[in-house]
Amino acid sequence: MTTLILYNGPIYTLDPAVPVAQALAVRDGRVVALGTERQVQEMVATAGRTHELIDLAGRAVVPGLTDAHVHITWQGFTRREANLAGVATLEMALEVVAQRDTQLPQGAWLRGGGWDHVLWGGRWPTREDLDRVCPHRPVILLRKDCHSAWVNRRALELAGVGAATPDPAGGQIMRDRDGEPTGILVDTAMDLVRAVEPPPTEQDRLAALQAAFDEALSYGITSIHVPPGTDPADASTTLRDLQTMRQQGRLSVRCLAYMAQPDLDAAIALGLRSGFGDAWLRLGGLKLFADGSLGSQSAEMLRPYEGTSSTGLAMMPPEVLEATIRRANAHGISVAVHAIGDAANRKVLDAIERAIHDRQAQPEAFPAMALPNRIEHVQVLHPADIPRLGQLGIIASMQPIHCTSDITAASRLWGEERCHSAYAWRSVQAGGATLAFGSDAPVETMNPWLGIHAAVTRQRPDGTPADGWYAEQCLTVEEALRAYCYGPAVASAETALKGTLTPGKLADLVVLTGDPLQCRADELGAITAAMTLVDGQVVFERSSSGG
Amino acid sequence: MTTLILYNGPIYTLDPAVPVAQALAVRDGRVVALGTERQVQEMVATAGRTHELIDLAGRAVVPGLTDAHVHITWQGFTRREANLAGVATLEMALEVVAQRDTQLPQGAWLRGGGWDHVLWGGRWPTREDLDRVCPHRPVILLRKDCHSAWVNRRALELAGVGAATPDPAGGQIMRDRDGEPTGILVDTAMDLVRAVEPPPTEQDRLAALQAAFDEALSYGITSIHVPPGTDPADASTTLRDLQTMRQQGRLSVRCLAYMAQPDLDAAIALGLRSGFGDAWLRLGGLKLFADGSLGSQSAEMLRPYEGTSSTGLAMMPPEVLEATIRRANAHGISVAVHAIGDAANRKVLDAIERAIHDRQAQPEAFPAMALPNRIEHVQVLHPADIPRLGQLGIIASMQPIHCTSDITAASRLWGEERCHSAYAWRSVQAGGATLAFGSDAPVETMNPWLGIHAAVTRQRPDGTPADGWYAEQCLTVEEALRAYCYGPAVASAETALKGTLTPGKLADLVVLTGDPLQCRADELGAITAAMTLVDGQVVFERSSSGG
Repeated sequence: MTTLILYNGPIYTLDPAVPVAQALAVRDGRVVALGTERQVQEMVATAGRTHELIDLAGRAVVPGLTDAHVHITWQGFTRREANLAGVATLEMALEVVAQRDTQLPQGAWLRGGGWDHVLWGGRWPTREDLDRVCPHRPVILLRKDCHSAWVNRRALELAGVGAATPDPAGGQIMRDRDGEPTGILVDTAMDLVRAVEPPPTEQDRLAALQAAFDEALSYGITSIHVPPGTDPADASTTLRDLQTMRQQGRLSVRCLAYMAQPDLDAAIALGLRSGFGDAWLRLGGLKLFADGSLGSQSAEMLRPYEGTSSTGLAMMPPEVLEATIRRANAHGISVAVHAIGDAANRKVLDAIERAIHDRQAQPEAFPAMALPNRIEHVQVLHPADIPRLGQLGIIASMQPIHCTSDITAASRLWGEERCHSAYAWRSVQAGGATLAFGSDAPVETMNPWLGIHAAVTRQRPDGTPADGWYAEQCLTVEEALRAYCYGPAVASAETALKGTLTPGKLADLVVLTGDPLQCRADELGAITAAMTLVDGQVVFERSSSGG
Repeated sequence: MTTLILYNGPIYTLDPAVPVAQALAVRDGRVVALGTERQVQEMVATAGRTHELIDLAGRAVVPGLTDAHVHITWQGFTRREANLAGVATLEMALEVVAQRDTQLPQGAWLRGGGWDHVLWGGRWPTREDLDRVCPHRPVILLRKDCHSAWVNRRALELAGVGAATPDPAGGQIMRDRDGEPTGILVDTAMDLVRAVEPPPTEQDRLAALQAAFDEALSYGITSIHVPPGTDPADASTTLRDLQTMRQQGRLSVRCLAYMAQPDLDAAIALGLRSGFGDAWLRLGGLKLFADGSLGSQSAEMLRPYEGTSSTGLAMMPPEVLEATIRRANAHGISVAVHAIGDAANRKVLDAIERAIHDRQAQPEAFPAMALPNRIEHVQVLHPADIPRLGQLGIIASMQPIHCTSDITAASRLWGEERCHSAYAWRSVQAGGATLAFGSDAPVETMNPWLGIHAAVTRQRPDGTPADGWYAEQCLTVEEALRAYCYGPAVASAETALKGTLTPGKLADLVVLTGDPLQCRADELGAITAAMTLVDGQVVFERSSSGG
């Protein structure tokens, strides 16, 4: 059992008892010693153990990061798709498609999205454009708003869509003068092609997971919290696939897997509770949806969106939300409730508060919950609600990059007064709640260093706005790191194992390409992992050329 | 991190590479070294570690035993009940009841069973007998065959059973000359009282588990495989309670928990597979029933019971058995099928064989199973079926004490020819199957040393029959120990952690009061644990007075 010693670089433990160490020793998958270089080397030498040295050469070390909200399979698929987000010309888009075409096995569909023909001069692209670069396999590429799809001739053929096909209700097949489909399908017309798109096979899904794990490790992410699969017909796919990856020895990132709402009864029937599992794969709680999103103006607000009379949408009646949370908690199952708008967040807070009251009134009816309840996103709160998260022991699962991506929309739709308490991580933390940060990838980038940059600066990656958006909500770098390391360990009830670099805890850690506590704030987003260890094993190492 | 060194006694590792060692070192819950006393002490001294010594004083050490089939909550309850099995007189029975009465909280029901009025001269006991020693709380005591119950006046009052109560269909209220109930309720008449018996509270169940864990540790049992709860309305109680014990820090024995047949759909909906969990609490597979029992002549036989025209009962049609096994296996869930009779065993073998064929034909439809399939009991096999367990990779989960308890019944009901392949552990093992031994407690004693005695001698605890019953099926002591240690680890797919004493494996081990490999066979049943370690911690130590 060789001991691994990392030395000659600042080791930021996030442990208030020993915030910085100069060397760290790892054995049997655990951190076994921390201190000055001499202390650690002497300790190991005294123990007469063989050891290997890793010279940090000044590079910083932090605990492995957790992405506390990542759609991991979907992220993997997105990476395998043609990504046309921000692509400036049609010709460049076709080059991306042609390139992807060479990487796919014969017969596989080429999928992708993110294109915006407004950037291309406003002409809608056509099937002929696609047929020039990819005639043999079906291609389907969603527009950035997901309201239209650009397909090629092969996809139309497989779907049997031609001049004779009528427009479906709620959709449109764009046509040329002869009535032939041009290759653009709008809204429900997209379903004509989607209906013949083969669902991904298990092999596809496992490959996607592998790609997403590799990406996570390349940033220094060593644990993830995973919502259930997005297909309501089969929300358990993700948990099944994670077990398969585990059995195949390919689970390289530790996972906390959440269940979908329809699975609550099954979990209760089996008697399963949050926290069942081990340090590699654990059952989280029940994922619920209280409202929609800011971008689609479906986040539920206490007052109408600016300039409108709409207050958004509740995804379920408050009495159902309350009964579901109570029922889950009464069976030892904690909840993770999607809530964006201030009204949705208030309803979740009210519902959890009532479940806590019920527990106090009838303690015998509520087993102790292994994991705390959490709210996902927490994007805008009424100021009076901010301290309630801490009071009710709720984890604030927030995604800093949403803040800076949403600056324009939030300013316009919520207005200045409400934006003072939007993405208000500093206030939420000051109110006593634990922050658990994540990405919401693939909705946003999975890169946590862009998240840390956003949390610390409240600026977009390009540095705008110069003073930061509602900069009083900025975190320090150390606070942001804690929200990526320690906070998620609180959420998964694993602070005895993770969250800080402390002797006895798991040796999940990352050697960084830059020093987050010494660099300028505008350099934070460029930091990434030079080397990532999980369970004391080096599972990612960046080549010196940076690849 | 102190190292614990056990020395000065034979350490039977069950590891063929190093069958016997003289010393063993434990650290961080694992076995870290094995060898001669000098080797181990030098190793620890070189490492410069503090250590504690345990002088075995010649006592033997073996790996912690697993009880691969124990109804653990029920066992705990049974220990809290009045046990009247074999009690020779009515007065002695009433003394046991009076004694139990003093130990129960006010208002609690006094439960018990095992009495046989034939031993008491044949007079049925009465409620007046019970009222003499226990008038204030309801009492219900089942006869040894569980076909009648002896109750007191308080129980009859609570149930509203009196002279006016008609006999229910399928049952009888024994009555005196005035038509008043005497206190004996036969068959369905027992339900009149049972209907008002309060179900055990969670606190009752947890106390029962605690008592059963303590009993297990006192024998050196450190792991158990647990069938689902016997209440079909709430079969998940056991898994829930084990999680609660875990959360409360009271799970002192490692558990593999099986699911009940109605829960298969829930497990599939959630995407859960056999093996989910950790080294303390893991999900087993699906428990199914193919037939009944020998004693009630409901075990399903290929030919009629001797002197009868009955072949017993199938608990489900073969096509349902086959479809259920296939469906479970196709979702990564292994099965543990109760099969006693040779016909039932054949049907299970056939069904598993077809599932394996289906897997070979359609490998993509069957995920790899983390745990092997198993048959519970395997009490009598057609000789042609014996090698099939090994061929099909099925664990033979057998309970040696059933053999010696059943000698009379098996000889009478199955006859000599069939008894040659009854409880045929040696032949089953020779056929290539892994044996996983257990107790079926509380149906039989949980004491595994009585099981080892039965497996090795095929004699009852009193030494009869003198030559052993079909003695060609006797195992060696070492084989029997392997069936209690290594076989169950194969069944739970944990041979990397358990089953032998090997560096790197869990430090679950037992110091014995006697040396099973040196003592006479008739002394095996008197062996028990002097000290039991789980996860490197001493969790049981027998006082020197033997208590």
